[in-house]
Formats: sequence, structure tokens, C-alpha cells
Amino acid sequence: MRPTGKLHIGHYVGALVNWLKMQREFDCFFFVADWHALTSDYADTSRIKEYTLDLAIDWLACGLDPARATLFVQSHIPEHAELNLLLGMVTPLGWLYRVPTYKEQRDNIKDKDLDTFGFLGYPVLQAADIVMYKANYVPVGEDQVAHVELTREIVRRFNNFYPLPEGRAVFPEPEAYLTPTPRLPGLDGRKMSKSYGNAILLSEPEADIRKKIATMMTDPARVRRTDKGTPELCPVFDYHNVVSTPEVIAWADQGCRTAGIGCLECKRAMADGLMQVLRPIQERRREYEEQPRRAWQVLEEGDERARRVAGATMDDVRQATHLTRSLPTPGT
Amino acid sequence: MRPTGKLHIGHYVGALVNWLKMQREFDCFFFVADWHALTSDYADTSRIKEYTLDLAIDWLACGLDPARATLFVQSHIPEHAELNLLLGMVTPLGWLYRVPTYKEQRDNIKDKDLDTFGFLGYPVLQAADIVMYKANYVPVGEDQVAHVELTREIVRRFNNFYPLPEGRAVFPEPEAYLTPTPRLPGLDGRKMSKSYGNAILLSEPEADIRKKIATMMTDPARVRRTDKGTPELCPVFDYHNVVSTPEVIAWADQGCRTAGIGCLECKRAMADGLMQVLRPIQERRREYEEQPRRAWQVLEEGDERARRVAGATMDDVRQATHLTRSLPTPGT
Repeated sequence: MRPTGKLHIGHYVGALVNWLKMQREFDCFFFVADWHALTSDYADTSRIKEYTLDLAIDWLACGLDPARATLFVQSHIPEHAELNLLLGMVTPLGWLYRVPTYKEQRDNIKDKDLDTFGFLGYPVLQAADIVMYKANYVPVGEDQVAHVELTREIVRRFNNFYPLPEGRAVFPEPEAYLTPTPRLPGLDGRKMSKSYGNAILLSEPEADIRKKIATMMTDPARVRRTDKGTPELCPVFDYHNVVSTPEVIAWADQGCRTAGIGCLECKRAMADGLMQVLRPIQERRREYEEQPRRAWQVLEEGDERARRVAGATMDDVRQATHLTRSLPTPGT
Repeated sequence: MRPTGKLHIGHYVGALVNWLKMQREFDCFFFVADWHALTSDYADTSRIKEYTLDLAIDWLACGLDPARATLFVQSHIPEHAELNLLLGMVTPLGWLYRVPTYKEQRDNIKDKDLDTFGFLGYPVLQAADIVMYKANYVPVGEDQVAHVELTREIVRRFNNFYPLPEGRAVFPEPEAYLTPTPRLPGLDGRKMSKSYGNAILLSEPEADIRKKIATMMTDPARVRRTDKGTPELCPVFDYHNVVSTPEVIAWADQGCRTAGIGCLECKRAMADGLMQVLRPIQERRREYEEQPRRAWQVLEEGDERARRVAGATMDDVRQATHLTRSLPTPGT
């Protein structure tokens, strides 16, 4: 994840819940992609470290467990830059221009300068991030599957040019790890995004959250209290589906369709459910906020673990590319 | 210099002679650009370390002095990759496509795959190589001036976005250090290049060199012994100008114009002069060939020195980009 500030509940539902499951099943590496943040926002990095710490605190608050998973900061592992450079050597330019999100973002994002070498190359850096840990799976959304596919192609090319002795491949080809994640729209029904001002942060005080939810968009067809509603068309119901108990969901569903309950009532029940989810997260968050050094130390320990793995990987890479540092002997 | 095998006398006259002078006047860094070699020749790196050692031995044989200058291997200083990544973030794509040699090489070099991200980005890597040592001057030929100009532009942009405290600039803007170098054509009168098969290597045995010179191209208008020649049109005379004493040059000039001497005679005198230059180089070369570990150790010591400087530079870079590893405190 890029460090762009505090996480919102869309991040939690869309990614973190899945990560929490994965950390129990796999040997996971989660990192703050601070170098990636520069690919589209290079001009002002003054808050990047603050955001890095914020992200770590949000992760820990959500339950990412440093005893199970490795949490680290990308820029603290310079090996990523070295592998990025080497992968770039074998990456055809055309592959990068054909990444679907590349053209789309360059055409649509007008408030950022994306005409840089760094932005064109970010799928290469992403490939380095992934294969550095010889990852088998990468948890991504549908829109990121093309990137993982590109990583596979770059890796295949690298493995082909630079085999280890006895033809062993340096890297496994990673697979996209797709998990169905519930859609959680923003307060106005659009995609949730901090820049739209329609997000609920994990760290927001309960009073603020309840106020936001009270003004949240509902089924536009249900204008008066006596109008019957259609839950599938109501953002509040999307939230119920994620945060409420089956009983409350059934109550809201039926109450909406029959105009048996009002929207405010329905929202209040949803807010209760949401706070059930957020309260333990916010409690843990406060603990780390009071001891930022503890959260930072988690990252430092993760950095160390990541560097050990990255170091071993780069040993393989340097051997395969004939760039080790030992005295060359005939035939090496 | 890229590690592409043993040096020829064109390298010596065109670059090394100048470097020998520079190492007495400046604090010089000379490096084996092995990562750069991958930008155009990534597919087979099996001989890259052998070539790296060859290059170091040639340098030492020519008189580069590790007590005066730092001789090192690019890929052994991973900081170059990190700085390359960061400089790439602020480098507009258009600047790279407009580098004169880029289009020219992509259009003209047909036997290599230059359609890679690495090849497009090599001026960025070059910029990182230069500014890592906060270089003030870069010894280049006319054809490389555009690259140094690009480095200046990248650096200016970087300094502008990422000032150090009190507005200090991280990097000085380097200047091209142009020195008039005598032209030394290949044996067939074309540009000297190993791939043309028209080069004389610094390390070639005297007998082979004399044989090559005997068959060397001369003024095409001087067909018979009795024809008068024009020294300015004769590649052999270009060599005289570089390797012979003023007396021998005058003798050859007059003898050619008057048909007073034959070409073979003239060539023999030039070969004598060339061997005067090459003999001490070849003697030192043999010493290092017998002790490759000594030459490698020179590189290792240079690596260490280079890493110290690179480490200090990256401390500045990380401070300026807000990517240091310390606990963030409000306002850092």
C-alpha cells in the first residue's frame, strides 16, 4: 500500500480483512510502498514519513501481526531498486505502454504529472517488489490482475536469460490471489476515496462517523418516510451487509421494502454495527498513537527480516547475471 | 567505461591519456559500467566479470593509479540503483526520447534489441553515476555532451523539488570536460572498433601488431613505390602524429610527399614508435595478468572508497526526499 494518509473503511473491507486471513495461511510480506508513491506524486514528499507511520499504525490496529507477517518499508530495502534496475533491462518498452491502467491513467488523471520515466516504470518496480520475496501469490483486485500478469512475463524473460546453475529458475512466477471483496461505496454512493471527501476513516471519532452516516445517501426513490425502498439500491444497505448481524440485515431489508422503518433508524443500526467493527481497531490504534516508537520498531524489525530475504534473493540474482563480487575465474 | 573486453589503442589515445592527466589534477572516480553494459547487451552476461577484470588490468597497465584515483565497479555500489530510481521519478519521458543518440542508435543499430525500458533509461543511470560523487566535471567526447546536459537538467529538477535544509542543493551541476583528442582511425581507415576487426589491442603481442601494421591501409593514391603520397590522407601518418618523435614525423612527412621512402619503411618506423608507447603498458599488464587477484583487490578497495562517498550522498538524498529511516517526528 502506498503511504497516502490514514486508511478508510473501504481499505479495511477491501484489503485488510483479506490480509488478516492470509497472514494465518501464508508467509506474508506487507510493505509501505513509499517509492511507489513517488511515481505519481514526486513533487512534495514532505509528509511521506508521517503517512508511513500512519499506515503502520492502521495496519497494526486492524490486526496485522508482526509475529505472523513481515511489515516493512520499501525504501528501507535498497535491494528493490537494484532488482528494479535489472528487471528493467529485460523489459520491452511496449509491454509497459500496453499496461491497461497506464494509458487510462495518463488520459484521465489531469491534476498529476504522469509523463515521467518513473511512472512508466512502476510495473517494473512492482515486479521487483513481488519477486524479491519469491512470492507465489499476490493479493490484488481485478483491476490489478494485468500487473501481476506483466510481472509473470518479466520474470519469465529474466529466468530465461539468467538461469542458475543446472538451469534452475531464480524466481517462481507469481499468481494473482483474487478474493471476492464486498463493495463498500462512499457516503455519496460513488467509489470511496479520500479525495472525493466521501470516506469514513478507520481512525475517526464515533461522533463524527455517526454524523456522517446520518447525512449519507440512501435509495433516491425513497423520498418520504412512507415510500417503500429498495435495499439493493441503497449504499447504507451495502454497509449493513458488511457490518451488521444477519438479524439486523433481515430487519433492515424488510423494514426498508415495507417502509416499516425510516432511513435514520436504519442508519443508526448500521452505525452501531460499524462501531462494533471499529471500536477494537480504534482502541488498538490509540495505544500505538501514544507510542509511535513501538509501531516504528515493528517496521524496523520487519525491515531487517525483509532485508535478510532480499539479500538472499539478490545473491541468486547476482549469481545468475554473473554480477557477483568475487574474483572472476575462467568459466564463471 | 563499459566492460566489453580488452582495450585498443583508440581507447588509450582517446580517453586514457586524458584520464592520466586528470588523476593528477582532480579527485577522480573511474568505474567499470557493468550495469550500463546491460542496457544494450542484456541477453548474455556470461563474460561480464572477465571483461571487468580485463578493463581494470588495462587501466592499471596504462597508469591509472589507485593511490590517486578511485577505480571501482558500478554494480558493486548498489546506491547507484537507488539514486537511479529516484532520479527517474522526476525525469520527463520526453527528455529521454529527445536524447540525440537515442533515436540515432535505435534507428541504426539493428543487431541489438534496444526497445527496452533499460535502454531508454540509461541517461538516467548515467546521471546517477555522475552526481553520486557530486562530480563537477565529466570527461566526455563531443558526442556525449548532450548526455551531460541532460544530467544537468535532471539534477536541476531534483535540487528544485528536494532542497536540503536552508535551501542547500544536494548536487552540483556537472560540466562536460572536453579535451581535444587526436583521431586514431582503424587499420582500414574507418573508426577503430573491435567489432570492425580493425583495432590494435593494447595487449597484443608485438609480432601481431607489426603484422597488422604491415597490411594497414595507406593513402590510396600512392599505388607504386615511386608515387608521391599525401600524409594527411594516410592513416599511418595519423598514428605517427600520436606515437612518433617530431624528427620521425618530419622524416615520414617529407619522405611520403617526395616518394623518398616507401610505405613499408614508413610503417616500420611508426610501429617502432607505437611499441615505445605500448612496451611499458604491456610490461605492467603482464604483471597484473599474473596476479589477477591484485587487480581485483584494487577494484575492491575502490569499491569501498566509492561506497563511503555514495553512502554520504545518499544520506543527503534521503534527507532531502524525506525518506530517512528514523522515527518520523512532527515537522520532519
